[in-house]
Formats: sequence, structure tokens, C-alpha cells
Amino acid sequence: MDLAETFSNKKIMITGGLGFLGSNLAQKLAGLGADITIVDNLDPDSGSNPFNVHEIKDQVQIIQADINDERLMTAAVKGQNYLFNLAGQMSHVGSMLDPFKDLNVNAVSQLKLLEVCRQNNPGINIVFAGTRQVYGRPKYLPVDENHLLTPLDNNGVSKRAGEMYHIVYNRVHGMATSVLRMTNVYGPRMRIKDDLLTFIGWWFHQLLMGDDIQVFGDGAQIRDFNFVDDVVHAMLLCAAHPSAVGKIFNLGGPPVNLRGLAKLMIKINGSGNYVFVPFPENRKRIDIGDYHGDYSLIRNEIGWNPQISLEEGLARSLEFYKLNKEHYL
Amino acid sequence: MDLAETFSNKKIMITGGLGFLGSNLAQKLAGLGADITIVDNLDPDSGSNPFNVHEIKDQVQIIQADINDERLMTAAVKGQNYLFNLAGQMSHVGSMLDPFKDLNVNAVSQLKLLEVCRQNNPGINIVFAGTRQVYGRPKYLPVDENHLLTPLDNNGVSKRAGEMYHIVYNRVHGMATSVLRMTNVYGPRMRIKDDLLTFIGWWFHQLLMGDDIQVFGDGAQIRDFNFVDDVVHAMLLCAAHPSAVGKIFNLGGPPVNLRGLAKLMIKINGSGNYVFVPFPENRKRIDIGDYHGDYSLIRNEIGWNPQISLEEGLARSLEFYKLNKEHYL
Repeated sequence: MDLAETFSNKKIMITGGLGFLGSNLAQKLAGLGADITIVDNLDPDSGSNPFNVHEIKDQVQIIQADINDERLMTAAVKGQNYLFNLAGQMSHVGSMLDPFKDLNVNAVSQLKLLEVCRQNNPGINIVFAGTRQVYGRPKYLPVDENHLLTPLDNNGVSKRAGEMYHIVYNRVHGMATSVLRMTNVYGPRMRIKDDLLTFIGWWFHQLLMGDDIQVFGDGAQIRDFNFVDDVVHAMLLCAAHPSAVGKIFNLGGPPVNLRGLAKLMIKINGSGNYVFVPFPENRKRIDIGDYHGDYSLIRNEIGWNPQISLEEGLARSLEFYKLNKEHYL
Repeated sequence: MDLAETFSNKKIMITGGLGFLGSNLAQKLAGLGADITIVDNLDPDSGSNPFNVHEIKDQVQIIQADINDERLMTAAVKGQNYLFNLAGQMSHVGSMLDPFKDLNVNAVSQLKLLEVCRQNNPGINIVFAGTRQVYGRPKYLPVDENHLLTPLDNNGVSKRAGEMYHIVYNRVHGMATSVLRMTNVYGPRMRIKDDLLTFIGWWFHQLLMGDDIQVFGDGAQIRDFNFVDDVVHAMLLCAAHPSAVGKIFNLGGPPVNLRGLAKLMIKINGSGNYVFVPFPENRKRIDIGDYHGDYSLIRNEIGWNPQISLEEGLARSLEFYKLNKEHYL
């Protein structure tokens, strides 16, 4: 698959394009010669960070707007070839504190955007960023796409609604949509200034500030991780492959326990320490236990395989944050 | 299970209580000596019909309101022992014509109601009316609760979000919630004046008006049916059994093809005719094909079994509508 041939000079919209995934995707697509429009509302609770795209700022058009701004989005989607739909509320704890914002961003706004596309550009190809959170607590490992969906928090409900709408708009309206259920993604351009979004972002923060990494519980919990470049590659493959249309794919990587991850981060950093702390009650109630994903479906259907080892990905991430401390810490 | 003992003098709220399921439930609970509050917005697109409760109107309090009216619902839920949460947008075609109303009624408003309960009456026992529409097109028959959920229309998405919120509020907040996934329910007090809600309601209409019953396609499609009294019984069992808490149960009945159903309705009516007509395009796109449900889980867990045969249920329904024509046709 020649990605440059596929995306060069193509008109591409990225919602949430100033965030972690969106900005890394934009960076890649800029290199491929795409014509990029970013839509981002700069929500202070999100991963939005204008610095994320400073290297490509002359190659992207940035629209500061909510994706549910119907008038504005109607104009913006016209003529676009691809939509990478990454805008979302992704905080699990946040979804329990403000369930209505969570539902509004992840389901109501997504439905509005799909309707705008259907009415104004039904031929657009849409890749939606889903989450493994929709599975809830795994009944078996690794979790494949046939696993029951029993979300453990409001965010799992709203994100599931968002992905289902994408699939309905494929089945009923014939639109080209696909869904990637992401697991823990890490890399440059994350929100690491606080613990609002991801635990690994917060661990980067603690490590870089010289604080102890705080591991909840006994650190035996299993997770899997993808370096963001691998996820960007998955998004591009999804958009490029006709056989991805109408599909939902897990991403995933090798299982690691959290204690092992903390140790590895410290080793790669060259210094640091970790401590075990009790699970905060509001996190414990919605924690999913052990998880790692079976990603054989996307491997078999469109040939995706993660390429970047955890060691390499962590090294690249730490290097990035050390170089750009003032913009992320 | 002595239902009179369980519900006598208990304070019971029924949302959507002027509709088909809600009014039949209210009728039953009035007989059991319950103290009933109905909340219903009298939405002209719903099954609301004040005549549905005319026999018990002195025994029920009726609040005309949307369930997302926070101020009013806050006052109303206080002190209630049980909430039968039956308010919803149930038209599949309607959900495609107005997806935002569908999502608002079935997910946003449900979330608001759950929050109001959590904040004001967390001990309330809630039974939620779900739907087998969340499964989409069956991959195997009969469909059990482990079947993948791939809704084929917006209504399946929004109803799934509504039921997931009920389960999250059990798992995370410890509230007593349960979900019944209903299949085709029929009986007295349906909306049969038009084809907006159910095909079987529309068939009653055609039969009673002396028109031909219009069977879409070749009538070979399989469905299962529950007489409304059986569904009322399931709701009461769910509320009464502690082991139902946090569970999702299918309802179901013996499979029947639609041609067979049309013939049976005509036979029981003593006259009538049916014709095959092509599937309207907007219905064909969201049709789920053959369906019947496996209801062994609810049978094994709380002892529910449908008692009323299709013959008897159709006879009782036709008798009811002939006696009350002016209120339903």
C-alpha cells in the first residue's frame, strides 16, 4: 500500500486534530503531501495543544469549532476526501463526574457530524477512533471483537454509541465508515501536564519531574500499549483499504504488567523510582482489571502490525518530552 | 412469589405509563393495591393514550411531563419504591427520520432520570424496557443475551445506550437496576390507529377496518411474540427478585412466520384477507430478517415463562379493540 499515492493532495479533515492522536496523524499526513483541515474546539479538559502542530502550522488549516457546529461543519466537510474523526471526551473519571458532557461530545455530536456528512458529502471516507473501554471487564484474554460489550463507566457507553452510529451510517446509508478500538496509546504530544486523561501520560510527568511514579494497587495489572506512530499507521490503512469499510477493528500490542512498565520507563529514563499506592475509590470502581487485545482481525484484513517496541516507543517519547518540556509539563 | 405482598401499598412510578406497556402494567398493579404515579409526556408520536387508564383513573396519579424535566422528576422520584422505566422512542423508521429526538429520548433523558434517581432516591428499584433491536440482524437463532450487538438502525443505538447506562448505574453506583429486552409485544391498549409504531398494531387496524392485511415481502420472516400480560408479569418478577438486579434478560416466545400470523389473525377474527406487498425501501434497509429470542436465562433465573398462547392473546386483543373501537382506531 503506497500511502503517499493514496493521500497526496487529498483533502483530509481531522477532528480533534490538535490533540494527541490527531496531531501525530496530521504530522504524518503533512509529510505525505495531504491537504489538511483540523477541527478542534481547544477544550481545556482535552488533549488539545496548539504546540502539537507547530512544525506543520503552514501546511494545515485550523478551524476552532465544536464538531456539533452544524453551519460551520456543513461548509467544512464539503469536498473532503477523508475524515479522521478523533474528537472525543476520553476521560473515564470525567465521564462519571459529568456524564452529560461525555454523552454530548461522544454521541450527540458524533451523530450530528455524521448527519452533516450524509447530507453534504456522503462519499467521504470516515475513520472513527473507538476505544477498548467498550468491552468493560474482560471475560477472557486476549479480548477479540466478538467479546461481549459491558462498559463499566459512562465513557464506555457514550463511545460505544458513537461507534455504533458510524456502523449504522455504513449499513443503512452506505457511507464508508470504519472504527478502530484503541487500547493504551502513548508517544509524543500527549497531555502529560496532569492525570486527567491517561495514566501513562501522568507517569511521564512524574518521571520527568523527578517524582516517584505512583502505581495503583500492586502493579500486577496487565495492559497493552501502542506507540502513536503505529496507531497513525492503522488509521491510514483503514482509510486506504476498501475492505476496512463497515468494520470494527481492535488495536493491541504485547501484554505488559504495570509494574513492568514502570520499571522499563525508569530504566530507559536512566533514573527514577516507583511506589505502590492504594487505588483511589473513584478509579477502582470503574477499573477494568487485566486487559490486552487480540488484533488478529486487522492484521489479517488490512495487514496492520505494530512495529515499534515498547522500549523504542518509550525512548522516543521521553526524548520528545525532554526536548519540549515547557510545552507539555 | 406473592406479587400482591410485594407490591401492595408500595409507591410505584411508571414512566410512559399512558402507553401500551405502561398502562397494562398500571392496570395490573392497581389490582395488586399499589400506589401508582404515572409520568407521561403524551407525545403524539408515542403510544400514549389517556383512555388506556380510564378504568383505574381514580387509583393513579398522572404527571404530564418529560422524564428529563429535572425539577419535576426530582420531586416525583422521592419516596418511590419501584420505577418501571418504560418511556421511550420506539419507532425504527422514526429514528432514521429524526435521529436526534430518538437519541435525546432514549439516551440523554434516560441518563438524566438515572442521575435524578441516584441523587434523590438511590435505593429505588428500576426495571428498564429494552428491546431486541439492539442485536441487529441475528447471526444465529434463537438469539441469546451473548449474541453480538450490531444494531441496524439509530433506535437500536439509542436504546442500547439507555440500557447500558442502567447497567453502569448498577455496577458503579450500586443501584438496583435490571433490563428486559422485549421482542414483539401485542395486546390491548396498543397504538393501532396508524403504522407508526408496530406492524402488528397496524395489522389489527387493517383487520378491524375490513382492509387487507399487508404483509411485506413473502411473509416467510420469523418473529416471536409476547402477549402484554406476560410482559407485565416479567416486569413485576424483575422488580421483585433480588437476583434480577444488574441483569439483562431477553423475553421471547415461540417462533412464527408472518404469513402464519396473518392467517391466524384472520381465522380468529372470523373474516379478513391478506396480501403480499413489496417491502418499502426505508423499512427494508433496517429490517433485521428472521428473529426469535432465547429466553432461558430469565426462565432459569427468576422463573418467567410466557403463559398466554398466540391464539388466546390475539383473541383477547381483537375482543378488546372491537369493544373500544372509537378509542383506538
